[in-house]
Amino acid sequence: MRIVVTNCNTTQEMTEEIVRGARAAAGPGTTVLGLTPGWGPESAEGWLDSYLSAAAVMDALRTYEGPAYDAVVMAGFGEHGREGVRELVDVPVVDITEAAAHLACLLGRRYGVVTTLERSCGQIEDSLELAGVARNCAAVIGTGLGVLELEDAERTEAAFLTAAERARDAGAEVLVLGCAGMTGLQQAVSEKLGVPVVDGVGAAVKLAESLVGLGLRTSRVAGYATPLPKRRGWGRSGGGAQAD
Amino acid sequence: MRIVVTNCNTTQEMTEEIVRGARAAAGPGTTVLGLTPGWGPESAEGWLDSYLSAAAVMDALRTYEGPAYDAVVMAGFGEHGREGVRELVDVPVVDITEAAAHLACLLGRRYGVVTTLERSCGQIEDSLELAGVARNCAAVIGTGLGVLELEDAERTEAAFLTAAERARDAGAEVLVLGCAGMTGLQQAVSEKLGVPVVDGVGAAVKLAESLVGLGLRTSRVAGYATPLPKRRGWGRSGGGAQAD
Amino acid sequence: MRIVVTNCNTTQEMTEEIVRGARAAAGPGTTVLGLTPGWGPESAEGWLDSYLSAAAVMDALRTYEGPAYDAVVMAGFGEHGREGVRELVDVPVVDITEAAAHLACLLGRRYGVVTTLERSCGQIEDSLELAGVARNCAAVIGTGLGVLELEDAERTEAAFLTAAERARDAGAEVLVLGCAGMTGLQQAVSEKLGVPVVDGVGAAVKLAESLVGLGLRTSRVAGYATPLPKRRGWGRSGGGAQAD
Amino acid sequence: MRIVVTNCNTTQEMTEEIVRGARAAAGPGTTVLGLTPGWGPESAEGWLDSYLSAAAVMDALRTYEGPAYDAVVMAGFGEHGREGVRELVDVPVVDITEAAAHLACLLGRRYGVVTTLERSCGQIEDSLELAGVARNCAAVIGTGLGVLELEDAERTEAAFLTAAERARDAGAEVLVLGCAGMTGLQQAVSEKLGVPVVDGVGAAVKLAESLVGLGLRTSRVAGYATPLPKRRGWGRSGGGAQAD
Amino acid sequence: MRIVVTNCNTTQEMTEEIVRGARAAAGPGTTVLGLTPGWGPESAEGWLDSYLSAAAVMDALRTYEGPAYDAVVMAGFGEHGREGVRELVDVPVVDITEAAAHLACLLGRRYGVVTTLERSCGQIEDSLELAGVARNCAAVIGTGLGVLELEDAERTEAAFLTAAERARDAGAEVLVLGCAGMTGLQQAVSEKLGVPVVDGVGAAVKLAESLVGLGLRTSRVAGYATPLPKRRGWGRSGGGAQAD
Amino acid sequence: MRIVVTNCNTTQEMTEEIVRGARAAAGPGTTVLGLTPGWGPESAEGWLDSYLSAAAVMDALRTYEGPAYDAVVMAGFGEHGREGVRELVDVPVVDITEAAAHLACLLGRRYGVVTTLERSCGQIEDSLELAGVARNCAAVIGTGLGVLELEDAERTEAAFLTAAERARDAGAEVLVLGCAGMTGLQQAVSEKLGVPVVDGVGAAVKLAESLVGLGLRTSRVAGYATPLPKRRGWGRSGGGAQAD
Repeated sequence: MRIVVTNCNTTQEMTEEIVRGARAAAGPGTTVLGLTPGWGPESAEGWLDSYLSAAAVMDALRTYEGPAYDAVVMAGFGEHGREGVRELVDVPVVDITEAAAHLACLLGRRYGVVTTLERSCGQIEDSLELAGVARNCAAVIGTGLGVLELEDAERTEAAFLTAAERARDAGAEVLVLGCAGMTGLQQAVSEKLGVPVVDGVGAAVKLAESLVGLGLRTSRVAGYATPLPKRRGWGRSGGGAQAD
Repeated sequence: MRIVVTNCNTTQEMTEEIVRGARAAAGPGTTVLGLTPGWGPESAEGWLDSYLSAAAVMDALRTYEGPAYDAVVMAGFGEHGREGVRELVDVPVVDITEAAAHLACLLGRRYGVVTTLERSCGQIEDSLELAGVARNCAAVIGTGLGVLELEDAERTEAAFLTAAERARDAGAEVLVLGCAGMTGLQQAVSEKLGVPVVDGVGAAVKLAESLVGLGLRTSRVAGYATPLPKRRGWGRSGGGAQAD
Repeated sequence: MRIVVTNCNTTQEMTEEIVRGARAAAGPGTTVLGLTPGWGPESAEGWLDSYLSAAAVMDALRTYEGPAYDAVVMAGFGEHGREGVRELVDVPVVDITEAAAHLACLLGRRYGVVTTLERSCGQIEDSLELAGVARNCAAVIGTGLGVLELEDAERTEAAFLTAAERARDAGAEVLVLGCAGMTGLQQAVSEKLGVPVVDGVGAAVKLAESLVGLGLRTSRVAGYATPLPKRRGWGRSGGGAQAD
Repeated sequence: MRIVVTNCNTTQEMTEEIVRGARAAAGPGTTVLGLTPGWGPESAEGWLDSYLSAAAVMDALRTYEGPAYDAVVMAGFGEHGREGVRELVDVPVVDITEAAAHLACLLGRRYGVVTTLERSCGQIEDSLELAGVARNCAAVIGTGLGVLELEDAERTEAAFLTAAERARDAGAEVLVLGCAGMTGLQQAVSEKLGVPVVDGVGAAVKLAESLVGLGLRTSRVAGYATPLPKRRGWGRSGGGAQAD
Repeated sequence: MRIVVTNCNTTQEMTEEIVRGARAAAGPGTTVLGLTPGWGPESAEGWLDSYLSAAAVMDALRTYEGPAYDAVVMAGFGEHGREGVRELVDVPVVDITEAAAHLACLLGRRYGVVTTLERSCGQIEDSLELAGVARNCAAVIGTGLGVLELEDAERTEAAFLTAAERARDAGAEVLVLGCAGMTGLQQAVSEKLGVPVVDGVGAAVKLAESLVGLGLRTSRVAGYATPLPKRRGWGRSGGGAQAD
Repeated sequence: MRIVVTNCNTTQEMTEEIVRGARAAAGPGTTVLGLTPGWGPESAEGWLDSYLSAAAVMDALRTYEGPAYDAVVMAGFGEHGREGVRELVDVPVVDITEAAAHLACLLGRRYGVVTTLERSCGQIEDSLELAGVARNCAAVIGTGLGVLELEDAERTEAAFLTAAERARDAGAEVLVLGCAGMTGLQQAVSEKLGVPVVDGVGAAVKLAESLVGLGLRTSRVAGYATPLPKRRGWGRSGGGAQAD
């Protein structure tokens, strides 16, 4: 089966890293294909970026011309758009935020999320709430690191471990990597913390494989019905990348 | 004071209608200025439209070059984007969904929303939940009418009255017009139903005036901090209106 | 329009202070009229005082013989009675507790309340819950100061700032003055804390003006129907003020 | 032990009926003493009556000059005041609303309340919520009968049975008599409905006996601390009964 | 009346201690009879023990051949089984977890539980949630002591007092002994802490007496219907006690 | 990998049917092994059966002597025991109740469960609540069929379709087969209803494969720590099957 993994930002290097994480998790018969939006923010940090990203990711899928695919994984932790993509495509759609939470719920009574900037915590809480999996979330904690600062693996790990302690104090028995850019970190921090650590990208790939394997598709009743045909403009003329 | 009222779609006639409603509610010293996004959906009906609309409205405000304004009213009932706009602009931002609910809570123990298509009910419920005002919402009911079908005032009123009965049965003591395009209907249906009916556009204008009058602005701490400077692309090149 | 602002206690000086705060917030066409109950507690601190106050305020309005008014603002933070007054009078009724919360929700993702004695925190939490606006309340914190101790502005400000830190730690991005007697403090503490601070008296005046401006009145369906005609006694014979 | 049972209204006949119900439930060593407020509403139906009743009941207890007592039972279903009385007296206080719910929770997974007028349902829901026992309440249903119309036992029973069906449909496995004036009805309707029916007056007497028997008293920490000494007026001069 | 008090484990000494506590609480006409399961864990600490205990206690009651009884008190704090026993027997069933919470709710606005091992806190939270009395629970705190370590009364008291401080900081105004093995401790710690302390065993005895006194029985509708006749095996052949 | 699927009852035919369902869902490298408890109920219908089943399933796994396995799937819809098994074994444990809900949440905004007897609905609701996935559950509906009556596939399908309509009316956009014995029905009813239908057995197999594939194991911190070594008896001597 083929899974399209959408990055939520325009940074190609991050797409590649996410694809590496997705491939590491994928089963033998699964092909992973990364999709970087042609526009949007270079990193999603905050609500404005998140809504911009949602539109850009929908546009990327809407105009996608590659080989047919069986599922979409949306790799923006806490970012918007999953319901829109569910309307848009005919295959199952799994967002890494909800995916990580679904698996975390199976591994302990309470889980916690460690993410990047403090400003993202609220978005993540809202995303978990609406996905229906917030009840057993003990805490969402920021490390203070920006998305594009995660490259320094050592610093990221140290910041993660510090934030993880606060999540543990709040009752978390399982931790979740709260950014697609943290993919790959799970094993090292899990060993150091002595608790399972769930990577949303891997989790979403497995859930997408599960849905496809079971022949399940998004319900078209009410909530996620196909978008109505109408005139829609996807961005301003000459809306290419520009520095704010 | 000057209030910018943003339509959530590209239909200029609807902007004008909304502006009429807003002006009817505005105080003597308030100037209302309508803003129609340059791209996005011609009507917002469903999640895909809503996220596209959120990006388009943010873009319209980001590139706005008119006279300075004191507040923004976002006139898309149940549509996304308010948190992003709060990050973007320095003045108070009031979304008509939350505005209607805030005032409705003051008028009865439980309120209900009557909206357009059934598919929009879920979005509205989510929007109320995250705004913190869902507790006293008894029901969100669809009329089955699309946004652009509301022009036929007689049919709209009849459909509203029918749906309102269901909201009443669910415990609603106050009703809310669940679409910006219903603005103006409130008096007629209120008299027929014998309960107060709140129009979100008017409610938002009054709340915006209230915040400005009190000198209150959006908190920049955590949640709605100013967007970080970075590269962002606002839509595809040549992304003007096109039929899906 | 004319707004009657009811003090929740019998202390005339506090009524005057509240009226000053209300007038500072009121629009140009609004007349504010203070109403001090003829009986009840000299300050409302705790449940017994609050229920006594509720009856006394209802009695003051029931027997009011002044000029006609367009709305009632109830200026007892966390005090009981708003539903009873909604039954009693034909004009909109806004309680400062809920009013502050409604506006605070528009200014940040989570708000906090800083009040007087710790014993009042529970009442305030209950009041916010039933008003339907508790979801986004991060904390209600006491300063340890009694209502009649607020006169010393310097001490009050210092105590407020200390308590505000605890609310901030709990996630509050916006603060609310949790006592009508704190009216006037908002600007100074807002500047020092760097977050918006909402005064309930001002908020309630603006919300009352909004409802009146929109022609909205309390629903008479179910919850707040007019009181049934029956025999009622309003206090003991010779029940004038006495020291407990 | 001696238990004072306070009626929430001034109707002496109802006090007597309540006392009969309380005595039927009381253990052999328990003396029940009825207390009718000297002022307040002749029946409590709605918020205005309820707040007036709360003050009147507190006043009755404050000025009570009879023999010492070991507990207070407050016999107003859904009426306000219990927290104030907890501050006022040094003995345990049990409100019949919460009492019925506490026992009902032990008898089935979900319970329902059948009360008098529809307008009282909201107050009862709020009372259960704040008492901490609303979670397992499936429904609160009105019979349409006023408090003083309950004397016609046959009509009351018939109305109860009809309303009970609606509670059953909503999932109630246990029913609660939602008015002190219904005391005595429980056995007949329980047999006809085939489910346990809890009378709040009896339940409260047993819970009061339980607390006294275990030597437990209201916590004075925070919430229900003793009222502060201050000047308080308990009603208007010459505030005796008068027809509204 | 006769009440059967079931220990949740096979330790006879603990049954005796529990019976002592139950008898101290019981009214003059009440006979208390202890029942120790013939199999199960020697102490219940964790989920595995709890489910094993639930089956063993049901088996003990199913095969009980003593004198007829009027109610069952289940003396395992936070342990499973109460709904199964409600199906099994025809008399009222009260679990000490819910019983303590019900009475604690009457004594303060928020209560806290102090229990044995940290690992039990989650079970207790779940038990309170499903019993419908978790809303006003401020915290469940562990002392770090195992069930069979409680014999050292001095150490237990010290550990209780330390943990109680944390519950108080979280808002608890009333405390609950979170283990049947703590029975008897309530008076000493209550005096030292200055707050009421509820023992679940005593609370459950009083609630059982209350239900019996009022002639109330478990509802047989839906939730707790009599078990269907079918083949059931109650444990492995030769499943007597063995060390794991 | 090898997955042990535990039946919750002693009916061998049902184990075989469940194993067929599990194998149909399993990936190519997965071996499914059915485990029937040596004691317990012949079908689990109600709380007593459920607790008995929990102990019997734990015993079956505790004394299991077959080949090593990588995960456990617990195939009792709404039955107890998952937390105990998580303590007991070192591999991931997935209960079909939670599994179906986790996947259903990914396919629509609200899901509904259709189960066997009405008496099981409450247990299922509780199970979903504690698993942290109840928020988006619109309804749990019974068909009135007992577990052992499901063999008549035609009748079962008809009953499912009827009950599904009620779930749909309550807002469900996705349905869940609420009994392991319904495995295999999903495709037929999905086509007839036009919505996705999730089978818990298949869902749990895929989730177990996912966890194993990602190298994730149950957290041993707090909640699901290894059972303490102690004396435990697993059932009465000679406790073999007997008719009640």
